[in-house]
Amino acid sequence: MSANRFARAARPLSRSLTVLNKSPCTAGQQRFAASSSRPAAAGNGQQPRIASTWSLSGVLAIAVAASVLGWGASELRHRGFPGAVLLDSAFPTPRYASMREMEQALEEIRQEIGNDDIISTDPDDLHAHGYSEWSSSNPEGLPVAVAYPRSTEQVSIIARICHKYRVPIIPYSGGSSLEGNFSAPYGGISVDFAFMDKIVQFNKDDMDVVVQPSIGWQDLNDQLAKMGSGLFFPIDPGPSAKIGGMIGTNCSGTNAVKYGTMKDWVINLTVVLADGTVIKTRRRPRKSSAGYNLNGLFVGSEGTLGLVTEATLKLTVIPEEFSVAVVTFPSIRNAASAAAEVMQTGIPVAAMEIMDEVQMKVVNMGGATAPRVWKEMPTLFFKFSGTKASVKENIDLVQKITRGHNGSNFEFAKDAREQKLLWSARKESLWSMLALRKEGEEVWSTDVAVPFSRLADIIEVSKKEMDDLGLFASILGHIGDGNFHESIIYNRQDKSERDKVETCVKNMVKRALEMEGTCTGEHSIGWGKKESLLWEVGQDTLGVMRAIKLALDPKWIMNPGKIFDR
Amino acid sequence: MSANRFARAARPLSRSLTVLNKSPCTAGQQRFAASSSRPAAAGNGQQPRIASTWSLSGVLAIAVAASVLGWGASELRHRGFPGAVLLDSAFPTPRYASMREMEQALEEIRQEIGNDDIISTDPDDLHAHGYSEWSSSNPEGLPVAVAYPRSTEQVSIIARICHKYRVPIIPYSGGSSLEGNFSAPYGGISVDFAFMDKIVQFNKDDMDVVVQPSIGWQDLNDQLAKMGSGLFFPIDPGPSAKIGGMIGTNCSGTNAVKYGTMKDWVINLTVVLADGTVIKTRRRPRKSSAGYNLNGLFVGSEGTLGLVTEATLKLTVIPEEFSVAVVTFPSIRNAASAAAEVMQTGIPVAAMEIMDEVQMKVVNMGGATAPRVWKEMPTLFFKFSGTKASVKENIDLVQKITRGHNGSNFEFAKDAREQKLLWSARKESLWSMLALRKEGEEVWSTDVAVPFSRLADIIEVSKKEMDDLGLFASILGHIGDGNFHESIIYNRQDKSERDKVETCVKNMVKRALEMEGTCTGEHSIGWGKKESLLWEVGQDTLGVMRAIKLALDPKWIMNPGKIFDR
Repeated sequence: MSANRFARAARPLSRSLTVLNKSPCTAGQQRFAASSSRPAAAGNGQQPRIASTWSLSGVLAIAVAASVLGWGASELRHRGFPGAVLLDSAFPTPRYASMREMEQALEEIRQEIGNDDIISTDPDDLHAHGYSEWSSSNPEGLPVAVAYPRSTEQVSIIARICHKYRVPIIPYSGGSSLEGNFSAPYGGISVDFAFMDKIVQFNKDDMDVVVQPSIGWQDLNDQLAKMGSGLFFPIDPGPSAKIGGMIGTNCSGTNAVKYGTMKDWVINLTVVLADGTVIKTRRRPRKSSAGYNLNGLFVGSEGTLGLVTEATLKLTVIPEEFSVAVVTFPSIRNAASAAAEVMQTGIPVAAMEIMDEVQMKVVNMGGATAPRVWKEMPTLFFKFSGTKASVKENIDLVQKITRGHNGSNFEFAKDAREQKLLWSARKESLWSMLALRKEGEEVWSTDVAVPFSRLADIIEVSKKEMDDLGLFASILGHIGDGNFHESIIYNRQDKSERDKVETCVKNMVKRALEMEGTCTGEHSIGWGKKESLLWEVGQDTLGVMRAIKLALDPKWIMNPGKIFDR
Repeated sequence: MSANRFARAARPLSRSLTVLNKSPCTAGQQRFAASSSRPAAAGNGQQPRIASTWSLSGVLAIAVAASVLGWGASELRHRGFPGAVLLDSAFPTPRYASMREMEQALEEIRQEIGNDDIISTDPDDLHAHGYSEWSSSNPEGLPVAVAYPRSTEQVSIIARICHKYRVPIIPYSGGSSLEGNFSAPYGGISVDFAFMDKIVQFNKDDMDVVVQPSIGWQDLNDQLAKMGSGLFFPIDPGPSAKIGGMIGTNCSGTNAVKYGTMKDWVINLTVVLADGTVIKTRRRPRKSSAGYNLNGLFVGSEGTLGLVTEATLKLTVIPEEFSVAVVTFPSIRNAASAAAEVMQTGIPVAAMEIMDEVQMKVVNMGGATAPRVWKEMPTLFFKFSGTKASVKENIDLVQKITRGHNGSNFEFAKDAREQKLLWSARKESLWSMLALRKEGEEVWSTDVAVPFSRLADIIEVSKKEMDDLGLFASILGHIGDGNFHESIIYNRQDKSERDKVETCVKNMVKRALEMEGTCTGEHSIGWGKKESLLWEVGQDTLGVMRAIKLALDPKWIMNPGKIFDR
């Protein structure tokens, strides 16, 4: 992947600049319609259609208004009404670089870094960095260039120059996010960390590791295993996720019920701020109460406050013993109540996942786990880890509890091969769903989380709504966290069907909020859930987030259009 | 305690205002020398000595400079150089209310809340809220009033009025902090949550609880036990600590090695901002990646960003079985290496504490655990919890490991009575040290944390330095977190001795930082460790913290003088 990118990035900039010069509109106006009818796989050589949507005078008028309002806002804040600043959601989009300024910025970056392949403007590259096949939402617009820095120093140079010219900066690592998190609605430069994918330092005795943002969590664990370290990094989102994006979205996965989420595993971060200033959040203690917890702030901020170029992560010991168990239930409610009792009994399960009858059917249809055929019933998947004795003890306890909630067909793995087999249905669930798509169909995958006593309620109502609308949707959840995912297949050509899906998702979010939940348990807000975040926390709390963003990124160039708008 | 405060608070305000009128200087100039020769116990009726240190003209000159520089800073930030704003540490103290404005503020608060006992200006009360017997540092100055709100709405009114008049606001709950965290160097109003000490809502099925800031963690656990909930809140700092202060300092305790720190147990916070705006950080999901993690930001911010008036906390299941084990070692290094191996083997100990031979001697001298007499050797204390089988298994593993590091006299508790006995030495350690003080002596207690492979090194060097200086000091640590406490007895009359102690503490902090550690693992920065924080994170990172503070509290009225200066 990196090599491939490198090849494209290596094209002479003379060509890049020609491409730029062809473009008739400013970076702030870039509106490549990322036609979702085209496969995202880069390299098909098609030039994206360009549709300029704003008039220059319009942009200038807004720019003037922006500076005036910006000043007003700053004054307001300085008179001490953070609420007031942030209650004002009528801020116009900040003004970004014109195309001439953009070219100057790219030229300056190239000059200062002195590396011809630091910048790519290859159309396929731009498309691959602005459009996501997995995302529920892809705003119009693509980055006007992709930068491939090799070091924190180079990222700092890029930020300083982008800051000088007001060029948006969008961080990119694994590209597996689901809410348009790395989209480029205002153009700008996508900073792809493809070349920053190394383990920088491994501190075995302290059980931590210093890594660059583009190392994948699976690659990290493979390397730790090869070293015979006996340690691993437990956060397990989608297989292609990389540490940079995992930090940006505060992701988690099936291990969260035992090991928590990304924010719980960060010891320190090296961050390049909007103006190129490089900070380190703290040194290397596993525990600290020294000053503001900047780790907690940057994790989950989706690159809107700064670019993470290095992270020190906690590691944990690989348990002596693992096992997996699977049990089916007559209803989601039975499964959910069994799961609740497991939690309330304090059994330290390593993972506890729910899949509804549709998702089980999808796995059978996909055939990825053949010859095994699964009962098409609501099913709980358990992972156990610890010492031999504790694993056996926990399996017995869980079997007893599930039986009490009409669980049947309880199976547990006797060996590693069976573990793999039993877990395979869970592992293949997303791919099985994607494999079901017919020509022109897409999968809308989203998540919410609720206090776990409400999980059965929200799943039942949400399933019924989708069935009533005749949508094909499956449910899969990290039930121990009250967090579940809904995957809906729809035909992108059929507007009314897409509207139905959108309505279902919005209703599910509203239901989650009524139940005191959140609009996203682990996927984050990105471009797609800004309205949901406002519903969730309200204007005043959003105002505090905006005040922090304004303080650290007053030109609003860091991943603009994500989480909330100015 | 509350009743006692209430009695004092109930004195007619007419008297309060007379007291205020007597005072010759403005709130910004308040300089009550909190003579450390007086016990902090309130109610001794002595009037603190007043020493006015600034001239009015000086204050005015600074005020003008402040407003000019403040503007400059804001402009700088708006041109986008957060670093630059915050690298400028030459900011003067912000201007606070004059005495007349102060009186107006108090009068307005009383009028608007319509409650005569909302404000106390009783000198004993002021002293009890501005001076701490436990603190390593007590700046001059006391609050000019103590407010006793009964609700979030009342706190919001207090903040709005203080904001209008630029009156400093200092939150107060348990008063057990160690770094001058609730001191009032610039006067202002201490907001004592004594009357906000209830459980607001208990969600048994979701395993969480909504509480007010002045409930103590032990009281919370007693109430959960009385309800027969089977749940508890695992963060265990000093016994008198209360949730509000625990959030402010991101505290932890002996359970941190298994359960983490305060920040890991907060689901949401209700916060009153500097201008009285009330926000809720999020709803009630156990897991979320929706927007900035404001829980993570407010926890550990020591009331410098807002006042927490309500918190929803996670609870966990009380393990079926507990046990305690104690083992002695010939040297700190042996004990530390045994502890490291326990961690690196992944044995889930519930607590792992180290006490040096001095601390063990102190416990014997204190006699609180008599007739039991302890071996005066470096000692590890272990807590185990889980199912019967796993506890037995873990005890055996730990015994095997400690033996391999020359551990001897391994004892483990056969029943609850023995558990209490074995843990008593650890429990009594601080009190035993305090009991040793002769007339005129004080105990300086402080903490640092390092990557745990360095713990033996820093303890050895620090002990040697104190011995060489002829200081009587003991060491006690949460060894699984690389976090330890040093308690030093010194004579407060003897300046040269106090200087020695100060030097030892500074050297210990510098050593911790050289080892990539932190200047405080769980006590936080407060007034006492601001310089250490600067050493630890540097100007640019401190600049980011300052930018956030300025954005949310532009008048700098929230607990001023703590963590960092403007």
